[in-house]
Amino acid sequence: MRIALDAMGGDYAPRNMIAGAKLALAEFGRIETLFLTGDEEKLRHEMKELQFHDPRVEIVHCTEVVEMTDSAVKAVRQKKDSSLSVAADLVKNGRAQALVSAGHTGAAVAASMLKLRTLKGIDRAAIASPVPNTQTGMCLLIDAGASVDSRPQHLFQQAIMGSVYMKRLFGIESPVIGLMSNGEEEGKGNEVTKEAFELLRAAKGLNFKGNVEGRDLCNAPIHVAVCDGFVGNILLKGSEGAAKAVGSMLKQALTASLGRKLLAALLKPALRAAADRMNYEHHGGSPLLGVNGVSIMAHGSSSALAMKNALRVATETVQSSVNAHIEEEIARQTS
Amino acid sequence: MRIALDAMGGDYAPRNMIAGAKLALAEFGRIETLFLTGDEEKLRHEMKELQFHDPRVEIVHCTEVVEMTDSAVKAVRQKKDSSLSVAADLVKNGRAQALVSAGHTGAAVAASMLKLRTLKGIDRAAIASPVPNTQTGMCLLIDAGASVDSRPQHLFQQAIMGSVYMKRLFGIESPVIGLMSNGEEEGKGNEVTKEAFELLRAAKGLNFKGNVEGRDLCNAPIHVAVCDGFVGNILLKGSEGAAKAVGSMLKQALTASLGRKLLAALLKPALRAAADRMNYEHHGGSPLLGVNGVSIMAHGSSSALAMKNALRVATETVQSSVNAHIEEEIARQTS
Repeated sequence: MRIALDAMGGDYAPRNMIAGAKLALAEFGRIETLFLTGDEEKLRHEMKELQFHDPRVEIVHCTEVVEMTDSAVKAVRQKKDSSLSVAADLVKNGRAQALVSAGHTGAAVAASMLKLRTLKGIDRAAIASPVPNTQTGMCLLIDAGASVDSRPQHLFQQAIMGSVYMKRLFGIESPVIGLMSNGEEEGKGNEVTKEAFELLRAAKGLNFKGNVEGRDLCNAPIHVAVCDGFVGNILLKGSEGAAKAVGSMLKQALTASLGRKLLAALLKPALRAAADRMNYEHHGGSPLLGVNGVSIMAHGSSSALAMKNALRVATETVQSSVNAHIEEEIARQTS
Repeated sequence: MRIALDAMGGDYAPRNMIAGAKLALAEFGRIETLFLTGDEEKLRHEMKELQFHDPRVEIVHCTEVVEMTDSAVKAVRQKKDSSLSVAADLVKNGRAQALVSAGHTGAAVAASMLKLRTLKGIDRAAIASPVPNTQTGMCLLIDAGASVDSRPQHLFQQAIMGSVYMKRLFGIESPVIGLMSNGEEEGKGNEVTKEAFELLRAAKGLNFKGNVEGRDLCNAPIHVAVCDGFVGNILLKGSEGAAKAVGSMLKQALTASLGRKLLAALLKPALRAAADRMNYEHHGGSPLLGVNGVSIMAHGSSSALAMKNALRVATETVQSSVNAHIEEEIARQTS
């Protein structure tokens, strides 16, 4: 298997990308070639620092970097020699099977869309973000922000893609699909989701549960939550933010006195265990589903561990032939 | 001051409503008359049980109750003698100055809109929900679900209403306004928010900070977060759900062994202090801003404490003449 890693994308690039690559190669034997795109000198320096030597690494030198302040489409059109563009080109040209980037999400979406194009029957790509869920362990939020102003057929296609992904990668026989809305009752929703509801209800063999609410994302027995990318992005970041706020209020309360501090220190393993279950680092990456290739978006502030897991998600997504199954399922639905 | 309480609305009605009324009358001397709408016999029975006798209480008997399964507009049009409709009528007819309901939110919005109408210059009412915020203590999310498919001018009006509310009720000199979007950068957003951005930027004397993201609701120094009701409802419930999920994962971790259980018991006051800061019971109610009267929505599962606080919010909203100030500010903006 051949993976391309945008080694200059991310808040802590290239350090964490290189460290994550080292962890991944040590653990995942199925990676045959790992392309690292970026400034060769910098990358070699970082690899030396980390005592990372592996014949499976192939550095592809390039001179530009997409900055967080760049506009997404402009970055892709103008910075043709960026670490992101070059990594996407490797997939486009068939030298790599998957692209992983922790850089500018909008640019990574744009590069993947422009260079890889969409699958047959899919109009738009969508970010599928795994979210911790107390009932099912994990719920896939799709779309977490690839595009906005979705039409009903986009939401329908997202449901199919999410369902196939959960089935193929996590072995869920019949993933439960919820349509994110402002109330559970049928008839709730905005114009677009009401129409999408009808499309989903009419779908063949889809385990469509109906409307779900914001709180269901983390707490209801669902595997896939479907929504527009504007809504999904706000919901995902809002959930992360609320969890963070609880954490910081808890921290304040637990450090308000010396006695509490001592007790809390004894409970550290328990507190860490709970925090770990909400931690994005373990899932590592969100696939951009619907593009003709595998493209994994990692969190901007990814640690080495998160990058390792993003590389794991990339290999698993390639291995499970999700794209072929998505095209097949879309064809079956529309036949 | 004269307040109408829908005594049959809420998951634990009429018990918690009556208990909350008792707490409120004991604490808030400014309430001169508290109308309780609902089945007189049931209400008298409940009052007797709670040893609640107060000459300021006036029961207004009615025969119907809006059920959670009723459709919102139908409930208001067909159940004219429901505890909700009768409470709204009391405000409409000037006998009461404010309405409080923990019942069917959609029906309470519809009843308030249909009976009270909107303020001059306001096209739609919006639910203003206080959300715990680590920087400002509280951020007002508006609209938390009164209407969907907002147009740019609705978002603009929501910003004005939220700003006036935070200024008048919480004494914030110049409330910081954020427009909820899928990225902070200017130019991020869907079609509607991009247009709203321009309107807000051009507003006179509004402390508009620009786009904010989901995580900012609980964590950024903002006082008002403006969004469409579909998005706001999902964001609010999503945040509550994430906080709940963290709580339940924490609970699991803290009860995984006897040793942990004992330590956690000693830390209970600290854990409770943190949980309390995320607890909706303390703010008690969300005003429906933009209607010609005061209408407070309480949480469906409101406790007596939550109901007391919803009644407090009602009296404070009446006292601060928010509506007159909103009309004034809208006129100033459009002159």
